[in-house]
Amino acid sequence: MFKYKLIIAYDGTGYSGWQIQPHDKSIQQTLQQSITTILRHHVVLIGSGRTDAGVHAYGQTAHFKHETEIDLYRFHNSLNGIIPHDIRIRSVELAAPDFHAQHNAVGKEYHYHLYLDKVMDPFRRLYCWQIYHTLDRDLLRQAASLFVGTHDFTSFANEAHRGTASKDPIRTLRRLDVIDEEGGVRLEFEGDGFLYKMVRNIVGTLVDVASGKRPIEDIPKIFASTDRRQCSMAAPPQGLFLMRVEY
Amino acid sequence: MFKYKLIIAYDGTGYSGWQIQPHDKSIQQTLQQSITTILRHHVVLIGSGRTDAGVHAYGQTAHFKHETEIDLYRFHNSLNGIIPHDIRIRSVELAAPDFHAQHNAVGKEYHYHLYLDKVMDPFRRLYCWQIYHTLDRDLLRQAASLFVGTHDFTSFANEAHRGTASKDPIRTLRRLDVIDEEGGVRLEFEGDGFLYKMVRNIVGTLVDVASGKRPIEDIPKIFASTDRRQCSMAAPPQGLFLMRVEY
Repeated sequence: MFKYKLIIAYDGTGYSGWQIQPHDKSIQQTLQQSITTILRHHVVLIGSGRTDAGVHAYGQTAHFKHETEIDLYRFHNSLNGIIPHDIRIRSVELAAPDFHAQHNAVGKEYHYHLYLDKVMDPFRRLYCWQIYHTLDRDLLRQAASLFVGTHDFTSFANEAHRGTASKDPIRTLRRLDVIDEEGGVRLEFEGDGFLYKMVRNIVGTLVDVASGKRPIEDIPKIFASTDRRQCSMAAPPQGLFLMRVEY
Repeated sequence: MFKYKLIIAYDGTGYSGWQIQPHDKSIQQTLQQSITTILRHHVVLIGSGRTDAGVHAYGQTAHFKHETEIDLYRFHNSLNGIIPHDIRIRSVELAAPDFHAQHNAVGKEYHYHLYLDKVMDPFRRLYCWQIYHTLDRDLLRQAASLFVGTHDFTSFANEAHRGTASKDPIRTLRRLDVIDEEGGVRLEFEGDGFLYKMVRNIVGTLVDVASGKRPIEDIPKIFASTDRRQCSMAAPPQGLFLMRVEY
């Protein structure tokens, strides 16, 4: 039995998300079917975690098992040859026999793009969240710093879907950087793991604070409440990118 | 009578090009109809020039006439409010009474993006031309320099469409820079005017030379032939962006 590790980039616009859904087009299903077609053997593709509908990835990571050793170069080209152009396999490698894309992940990096100019760049409309009110970048940076470190993130997590194991809500956010970019800012999150909708809930709260809708003092209060109804509305999916999974 | 000047960005993916076509969705038609709806008066929108199906723009420029003075701020917001999200009006201003978006243009800037990595970035698939063979960047720069200056570009122009005035084939290319960018290179063209398909024909020829398909010595020969069948196949439309029109 051999294990194969894939690093995958995808434009999530046209998909119901990573995870297989009964009646929708998912990234996982699209890939699993194509791999099964190439190997002429049913495979199950396990990702590092789900991404929601409309969320994008540069570095989603997944594994599958197969009984025989495959020619990696040929397989890589064949797979990219039959999957849709909005999904690209960046690399294929042989993994250790006990490798598991979800359980072995020790860290993840997400980027979230905020667009702040008045007129949207039409080439970025599907890849950022446009904020119409003025954002105080200093306040945004100050608020972002309050999330860094080890916290109970219960208040910033949505209920996981049925069937998903409940996760330890104590997480370490190693880094939350606010980087200026053309037309707006990019929020870079790096941590040991993220709860369901955690990045989008944090972004929603940061935008509310930086646009003056709620005071920065709310952030420690939201943490202390361990009540997810206290945080702001989740930021929309299209600004979010899963950049990298660490093992 | 007042004249209004618009600067327009668009993702050309879903359009048959700038110019109105009887049965296809064009940028010009989409905008003209929306302006007519807002002003409740039929307008004719004149662009600086056509862009072909699939070609993009950051700085297409156009004008229209209207009998009354309009509130620029409100008009700008209303227009962006009703046109599709893949077209954005970047600015609206009152122009001089004799301003003409096509006839007054004294220069244009185009960018063409070549993607050189083996695996396409799925977010750029609609915005560049992927080259599968190895490209010699020094040779590309050397070949590009042969196009700069004042030349008879007949060999690099396709037959203009019926009804288009034939243009003087002597053109000055002020600049053709090869800029390294993530995953590939960007070719920046700046000149006093461009003949039909001139940029894409030059790019096709440059790629043939830089990938070793034809010798660099072919370039002066193609110029000298004044025969458009001598140049290479035109590069595909999706790598091309009209960045700016100078007046």
